[in-house]
Amino acid sequence: MYLEQINGPDDVKKLNREQLKELAKEMREALLCKLSKKGGHFGPNFGMVEATIALHYVFNSPKDKIVYDVSHQSYCHKMLTGRKDAFLYEDHYYDVSGYSNPEESEHDFFVIGHTSTSISLACGLAKGRDLKGDKENIIAVIGDGSLSGGEALEGLDFASELRSNIIIVVNDNDMSIAENYGGIYQNLKLLRESNGQAECNVFRAMGLDYVFVKDGNDLPQMIEAFESVKDSSHPVVVHICTEKGKGYELAEKNKEGWHYCAPFDIETGEAKYQGGEEDYSEITAKVLLRKMKEDRTVAAITAGTPGFLGFDSKRRMEAGTQFIDVGIAEETAVALASGIAAAGGKPVFGVYSTFLQRTYDQLSQDVCINKNPALILVYAASVYGMSDVTHLGIYDIPMISNIPELVYLAPTTKEEYLAMLDWGIEQMEYPVAIRVPAFVISNEENVTKDFGKLNQYEMVQKGEKIAIIALGTFFELGKELGNKIEESMGIKPTLINPYYITGIDEEMLEELKKEHDIVITLEDGILDGGFGEKITRFYGRTDMKVFNYGLKKEFLDRYHVEDVLKENHLTVEQIIEDLESIK
Amino acid sequence: MYLEQINGPDDVKKLNREQLKELAKEMREALLCKLSKKGGHFGPNFGMVEATIALHYVFNSPKDKIVYDVSHQSYCHKMLTGRKDAFLYEDHYYDVSGYSNPEESEHDFFVIGHTSTSISLACGLAKGRDLKGDKENIIAVIGDGSLSGGEALEGLDFASELRSNIIIVVNDNDMSIAENYGGIYQNLKLLRESNGQAECNVFRAMGLDYVFVKDGNDLPQMIEAFESVKDSSHPVVVHICTEKGKGYELAEKNKEGWHYCAPFDIETGEAKYQGGEEDYSEITAKVLLRKMKEDRTVAAITAGTPGFLGFDSKRRMEAGTQFIDVGIAEETAVALASGIAAAGGKPVFGVYSTFLQRTYDQLSQDVCINKNPALILVYAASVYGMSDVTHLGIYDIPMISNIPELVYLAPTTKEEYLAMLDWGIEQMEYPVAIRVPAFVISNEENVTKDFGKLNQYEMVQKGEKIAIIALGTFFELGKELGNKIEESMGIKPTLINPYYITGIDEEMLEELKKEHDIVITLEDGILDGGFGEKITRFYGRTDMKVFNYGLKKEFLDRYHVEDVLKENHLTVEQIIEDLESIK
Repeated sequence: MYLEQINGPDDVKKLNREQLKELAKEMREALLCKLSKKGGHFGPNFGMVEATIALHYVFNSPKDKIVYDVSHQSYCHKMLTGRKDAFLYEDHYYDVSGYSNPEESEHDFFVIGHTSTSISLACGLAKGRDLKGDKENIIAVIGDGSLSGGEALEGLDFASELRSNIIIVVNDNDMSIAENYGGIYQNLKLLRESNGQAECNVFRAMGLDYVFVKDGNDLPQMIEAFESVKDSSHPVVVHICTEKGKGYELAEKNKEGWHYCAPFDIETGEAKYQGGEEDYSEITAKVLLRKMKEDRTVAAITAGTPGFLGFDSKRRMEAGTQFIDVGIAEETAVALASGIAAAGGKPVFGVYSTFLQRTYDQLSQDVCINKNPALILVYAASVYGMSDVTHLGIYDIPMISNIPELVYLAPTTKEEYLAMLDWGIEQMEYPVAIRVPAFVISNEENVTKDFGKLNQYEMVQKGEKIAIIALGTFFELGKELGNKIEESMGIKPTLINPYYITGIDEEMLEELKKEHDIVITLEDGILDGGFGEKITRFYGRTDMKVFNYGLKKEFLDRYHVEDVLKENHLTVEQIIEDLESIK
Repeated sequence: MYLEQINGPDDVKKLNREQLKELAKEMREALLCKLSKKGGHFGPNFGMVEATIALHYVFNSPKDKIVYDVSHQSYCHKMLTGRKDAFLYEDHYYDVSGYSNPEESEHDFFVIGHTSTSISLACGLAKGRDLKGDKENIIAVIGDGSLSGGEALEGLDFASELRSNIIIVVNDNDMSIAENYGGIYQNLKLLRESNGQAECNVFRAMGLDYVFVKDGNDLPQMIEAFESVKDSSHPVVVHICTEKGKGYELAEKNKEGWHYCAPFDIETGEAKYQGGEEDYSEITAKVLLRKMKEDRTVAAITAGTPGFLGFDSKRRMEAGTQFIDVGIAEETAVALASGIAAAGGKPVFGVYSTFLQRTYDQLSQDVCINKNPALILVYAASVYGMSDVTHLGIYDIPMISNIPELVYLAPTTKEEYLAMLDWGIEQMEYPVAIRVPAFVISNEENVTKDFGKLNQYEMVQKGEKIAIIALGTFFELGKELGNKIEESMGIKPTLINPYYITGIDEEMLEELKKEHDIVITLEDGILDGGFGEKITRFYGRTDMKVFNYGLKKEFLDRYHVEDVLKENHLTVEQIIEDLESIK
């Protein structure tokens, strides 16, 4: 086995063409085996095997620096740069993350997990090199899907200004996660069909030199192409055509389904564990489809990730032009929503908390200053969300809840979510965001609350001495805490569901002063700049003691939720201890 | 005079070609007169006179909807849509804002003041129209400079997906605020030089139809072009070539200098009021130039606004390749800084608080997760900064100070600023941002503090009972408050300069408990998610009373600072009253 012998790029360079071909086969086998057991980004990596071998065959990493966009295609790179064990041996599967990571290897230059950043980051490495007077090659590897993002397009536009070596490998597999959206893809198609010869060329139009590779899964073609641009004196794009999922028939046939995979059976391709549980993507898709049929101005928007909203290809077909994929372009998604709302339509943009970060200014300027009633559904906004450092969902409260005019809601049950969703779509007064809970909890209660009467919290249980204000997903923790306080301290505390992240119910908080000495806030996100601090500020001049519970401001990475909760004093037992310590 | 008769687009349509030409002359005279007295965006508006007349001659606003990017070229539009008085009569100059504004007129569809948003917003209007089954024209007007921004490029890429009417007018005056940077401008040049005939066409490469107008200051050409695309069934770009500053010789000759003007003498072009006072742009430029000479890895970065950093064309020349303009592309500016830092260079990105909003995700992902020691200088971050709703500098503390790993510093004097600037450039450990103060206050004290020892506040005056923690620009207010408390309440309060926005000095805060009952925080920004709330949270469980002073979370617009301070209880007298009320 050749792969077992590969401890770094030098070992790749020792192999002859036939051996490299064999290596490619072994890499696919290792990928298949690992991903079938652990899950991961399947399609992009299967497509990039030959290109990655060629990169390390031709260039001299880590002197030459390769930056992988979004890291979805970096597994092969990891295999060839001293991290093969993490793909060959089950005991070592968790030695590496799913993303590039300088702490893992000198062959990685950034922790990258968001799309469209590679070109601009690589421009920085190239500029740094030029300032120092060095000479190495700087290479960005970016998928066609990622090209639709603003930062990538800015980077393409800026790269030519460097006037020195930077090599941008565009891995064109004619797919984003789902199909591509954007005019640029017509041009990529034209380039593919003309063997790179078409005069109208978006890369040349951006001032870049251009090399076309017809078959990016053909090793000799790839090696030849990279040799032709190695040590280039100027910015150049190498446009390579690869097949997503190449080498695993099921993935070749269903590219969207195999962009990412959960553990699966290699023979049948079937997922090993069936989710089956109802989730908010499913719940939302059903509501939106119904609404769309009743009202043709209802539109669902995604930025290249239709699955968040529960829109598989069948549902997208059903929704027709009322479902809009803008490509991986969150800024445009939010501006589009604002424009649709301004025109009297009812737009709903669904996005993960971590990707909402890509559109702060559009939320503030395009939507909130204009008070346009766009609705934004914020998914995976929870410590229970994704646990990779680049995908955390614990910062959205400080980020967006301090933008004026926005109404940010935190439902605690499925019924509340549905009521908010309905209100958010139909109302025409406010920009609204809903922090979709981490878990589907149903109490089958009829929610009649008018969410248009802003910042009215609900006192779920009236007690004394201690009041618990428990936001969104942490409302369950609040309930549990309330019971435990009653049980162990003999005090029946007040329990409040605040609903609103963006404002405080001054009347209720004022009222609490009468029969309470302690207010506890619970929030599923970092404390800094968050919800609880607003409550504390309200009581700052009074005798009320306020205990804020939430997460510390830090970048977590691949954590276990239970550990993080414990470290942040977020267990019922710990909170009780805290309360008892000041008695 | 024709302009006096123009109460709306219908009145434009009544004029014949000769009369329209005369109207153009009158519009320039009115612009010249108003801007010489009041200042404003000069160059872009002078270039857009004919195009704007043609727009209103051909299209039927407000049924047809025109969206002006960044609004720098919207004055002529305002003149022709019922707001001529605001340009003709000095008494009415302040009736209109410098930006498009739906509250002013039914001919404006969004409040817009940030660059690069128009295409995506117009796509929203177009999509809304299509959902409703309407038929009007949707027009985005965008300058060539704005094309370098990610949201604009995303919008260009997405527009073709609409497959229905949207007309994108690219006003190409071959300038941003300063000269353009980006590969796309080579293509615009090629298109200009080939009379729009070049096969390689960035707009066609984005899937858009294309019309070229050689002389965008020629009314008949403009009318013909717009008539040719009116009611287009598909997305089309109208690329028009105009001259920035057209019609005022001095502005034609010095396009950068006349992008924006302060009040000036029409004969000589000289500014009526000489600033003369030292400002932080000047101070910064001098330091950076010196540093650049000592160390070739020091690089200054701007996103199309070199003036913020004090780099006029002479200084840019002097800095050579160590000064980098990425175009109006803040995302790339931040990613570039991260990359340069990763390569061992010393990047400094200067940006206004309001435009920093355009790059939240890059700050978080590209810089802070990677802990790359980029330095960001945040200008106009103050209630004393710009007062237009789209340009407020009072939200940056909640926005960026809650991002982990970032060190955000608030100097109170010139000497502190210089010390922080030096430290920020030279240190290699942290991503650092400095909140550049609103005023240059010099005390000529030697600053020896080691800013690398994070979150160590400075007790400037040790007193008792009351402690004032006064951040950055509001430190002066803190001093004044301290004196007044001593004078009127007979208590000598403690005064603290916190320096650090991103962390609290737990030791000092703990210490304060001993001899103080009240802590006052003062910050020059909104309270929600800000600095003071962190202090309040620290004391939440204790008997300490905390008074947070800062601004309310709201969108202010064209305000007087004194009014805003008063409304927010930010005068010394009001704070004393508050203190006395709880005694």
